[in-house]
Amino acid sequence: MHELKISPKVKDALEKRKPIVALESTVIAHGLPYPHNIETAKALEQICTENSVVPATIGVLKGEIIVGMTEEEISHMLEDDPLKIGTREIPYVVALKKSAATTVSATMRIAKMAGIDVFATGGIGGVHVGDWDVSQDITEMSKTDMIVVSAGCKSILDVKKTIEFMETFQILVLGYRTDKFPIFYEGLSSYKLDHVVEKPEEIAKIYLAKTELGIEGTILVANPIPEEHAISESEVEVYIKQALKECEEKGITGKQVTPYLLSRVAQLSNYKTLRANIELLKNNVRLACQIAKEITTLKLQG
Amino acid sequence: MHELKISPKVKDALEKRKPIVALESTVIAHGLPYPHNIETAKALEQICTENSVVPATIGVLKGEIIVGMTEEEISHMLEDDPLKIGTREIPYVVALKKSAATTVSATMRIAKMAGIDVFATGGIGGVHVGDWDVSQDITEMSKTDMIVVSAGCKSILDVKKTIEFMETFQILVLGYRTDKFPIFYEGLSSYKLDHVVEKPEEIAKIYLAKTELGIEGTILVANPIPEEHAISESEVEVYIKQALKECEEKGITGKQVTPYLLSRVAQLSNYKTLRANIELLKNNVRLACQIAKEITTLKLQG
Amino acid sequence: MHELKISPKVKDALEKRKPIVALESTVIAHGLPYPHNIETAKALEQICTENSVVPATIGVLKGEIIVGMTEEEISHMLEDDPLKIGTREIPYVVALKKSAATTVSATMRIAKMAGIDVFATGGIGGVHVGDWDVSQDITEMSKTDMIVVSAGCKSILDVKKTIEFMETFQILVLGYRTDKFPIFYEGLSSYKLDHVVEKPEEIAKIYLAKTELGIEGTILVANPIPEEHAISESEVEVYIKQALKECEEKGITGKQVTPYLLSRVAQLSNYKTLRANIELLKNNVRLACQIAKEITTLKLQG
Ligand SMILES: [Mn+2]
Ligand SMILES: [Mn+2]
Ligand SMILES: [Mn+2]
Repeated sequence: MHELKISPKVKDALEKRKPIVALESTVIAHGLPYPHNIETAKALEQICTENSVVPATIGVLKGEIIVGMTEEEISHMLEDDPLKIGTREIPYVVALKKSAATTVSATMRIAKMAGIDVFATGGIGGVHVGDWDVSQDITEMSKTDMIVVSAGCKSILDVKKTIEFMETFQILVLGYRTDKFPIFYEGLSSYKLDHVVEKPEEIAKIYLAKTELGIEGTILVANPIPEEHAISESEVEVYIKQALKECEEKGITGKQVTPYLLSRVAQLSNYKTLRANIELLKNNVRLACQIAKEITTLKLQG
Repeated sequence: MHELKISPKVKDALEKRKPIVALESTVIAHGLPYPHNIETAKALEQICTENSVVPATIGVLKGEIIVGMTEEEISHMLEDDPLKIGTREIPYVVALKKSAATTVSATMRIAKMAGIDVFATGGIGGVHVGDWDVSQDITEMSKTDMIVVSAGCKSILDVKKTIEFMETFQILVLGYRTDKFPIFYEGLSSYKLDHVVEKPEEIAKIYLAKTELGIEGTILVANPIPEEHAISESEVEVYIKQALKECEEKGITGKQVTPYLLSRVAQLSNYKTLRANIELLKNNVRLACQIAKEITTLKLQG
Repeated sequence: MHELKISPKVKDALEKRKPIVALESTVIAHGLPYPHNIETAKALEQICTENSVVPATIGVLKGEIIVGMTEEEISHMLEDDPLKIGTREIPYVVALKKSAATTVSATMRIAKMAGIDVFATGGIGGVHVGDWDVSQDITEMSKTDMIVVSAGCKSILDVKKTIEFMETFQILVLGYRTDKFPIFYEGLSSYKLDHVVEKPEEIAKIYLAKTELGIEGTILVANPIPEEHAISESEVEVYIKQALKECEEKGITGKQVTPYLLSRVAQLSNYKTLRANIELLKNNVRLACQIAKEITTLKLQG
């Protein structure tokens, strides 16, 4: 039997109905360079702990799905050169006993299996520019009951189409103190959001109404990066153009383009994008903690 | 706890397994101008009553989901300047205690929660012309067990693509005494329907086979406007072109375009489109009543 | 009540948990010309029997859904000039007592209702070239727990987009001893597969992990035609160009194009494509048998 390995702390929190925030492992394995990845993973867990919330970092170690990875388990995962997986690949790595970092879709699915309601990430996957390259995240969010706190999506995606897909597939997007859809470390896009909330409590109430009514799917909380950490679109554009030019020169294509872009843009910006990425992650975890606590309170009040 | 407020008449009908037809509130709040909206709402309910069918107008009043709205509740809803919501927005308005008129997707979902099988509307949302602007109605119909009686969709949608999407997402479209997909008040499109039925009883039988087999999703009954009320495509086109020209001149864009088009086309046609809209609604409700009664009869026969 | 008519042999196999492989009826009714269709149907069943696996050919006879059709039932179905149906049309033919051959989506859905895990077909439907013409097979595979063994899809589809859609809708594609997506009788495309397996046992294990974890949807096993039977893309292209030219000359359009193409390409190739089609079907059934037996063994081990 394939069961989740739930850490004692997370198990205890589930039993005692304490607030929990799920965290993904892809940001550690593939999103940030060493040693920033390990440091950020620790920092995000610490934010949870300081807020009396139990963090649950999710990943797969040699086929075992872990909810609440220890530092040691994260290190082991990284040593295994883990795959980067979405929901559809979970059975593949479980059955073949591979190690894997979980992206938004896989993390959400596993969090849901464990009984966790809130998940904090950096940005969601969406609709890529081009003919049809649409992330599993969209499909997962259309099905799985969860609150996902993110800074929207990266501007290298087709942001407008990503918002449209979320409408079609019934993913409720709530702007947190903003009526513009956020675009990761670049702050806010020009795309209008129809549903704005001001308080974590509102998000918790909307989520509980959703689950009580049996309406499936995700509430995406669109939480912009704090203004002081945002980088202007025009600045990022210069770096992206330069990096794209290099891709062409070096013959980098397909799935290699995005990682190359991200790492080169970090270098070219003198690591301003990296720092912004870390700041928005922290900002999302802080909000996720507040929401998780509101849910706990509301559930207790019954 | 968030529960549906089901009117005594609808509750009685559900208990005694009498035929019920769900009706939407968006046509009242956003589809027809005052006082035609109120008059039409009454007329549609009356058609049900005359056919010994219980009408169940669905909407949200200050966060309360109502199945079987009274005249007074409809008035209160209209006074609140209600939002126009699909399924994904239901939890938002419920939790934040807002008033809202329900579109096709939200009405279907709530009707299903209440245990109603048949819903009559004017036209469904579908695929808009352009890059990706696809109504929640498609997603909802791919999931929710229901018979939706409509006069197809408006010709300002991408009709061909709307039909294709319904095939992909497994929504069974039954032409009622027509093998051409209807396009609202313009009568019939040139697009061929593969599945034609002649009697309400056939629709009821197909629906019961579907639910017995556990096959999810909607049967869309494509019910053309009676020929004598249809307006020719070429005539409507003249009005639309004129209205689109005005949009450009007045700088009307985005979500403002459709309501402007509809109201201007009504004026330009000397309210011929408005009368046609009301006639097709009545025609759909009449057919929905017949289907609901057939379902009741077949269920009794077990 | 609409129940499945399950043949005594299939019923016995289900009760005793013996391996079963589902087979579709569309290949018999619409995929291969007479008498090759009947002969192939028999040959595929025989491969199962020789491998100690129970075949379950699925189709609809005068509204009755049959799992494990007899030769006689297949003949009756063919005499009825059966419809070609996907999942959404199942209730239509059941309620109206029509005969129908089941395509991939409908066969999968019925196999799942009966409790069968493995289904062998020739090629799946996918994304057609053009604006939006996407097979129900994609939607069905995104929902229904099943192993589908196929030689990929025909190259006349948009192969790249078909692969992308399967990613978006969370259909796990496993290359069987290949890291290139197969394109029916033309062997391998140039499109890379990320997940490759070498043994039927691996596929069985991945499937069981999937069902244990409650992750919905299909594992598509991409099983290339044995190299010695493959026909080169350039050769097929010559035939397709010729047949398309004839379509234009004869005014053949719409849904008539594909059947015309397939039959003309068979003739022009001197029936090389027909023989290849039959060989890949046999090859898929052989692999499906091995997988079904591995599943049975693993389930017994608990
Ligand atoms: Mn992709
Ligand atoms: Mn839209
Ligand atoms: Mn099609």
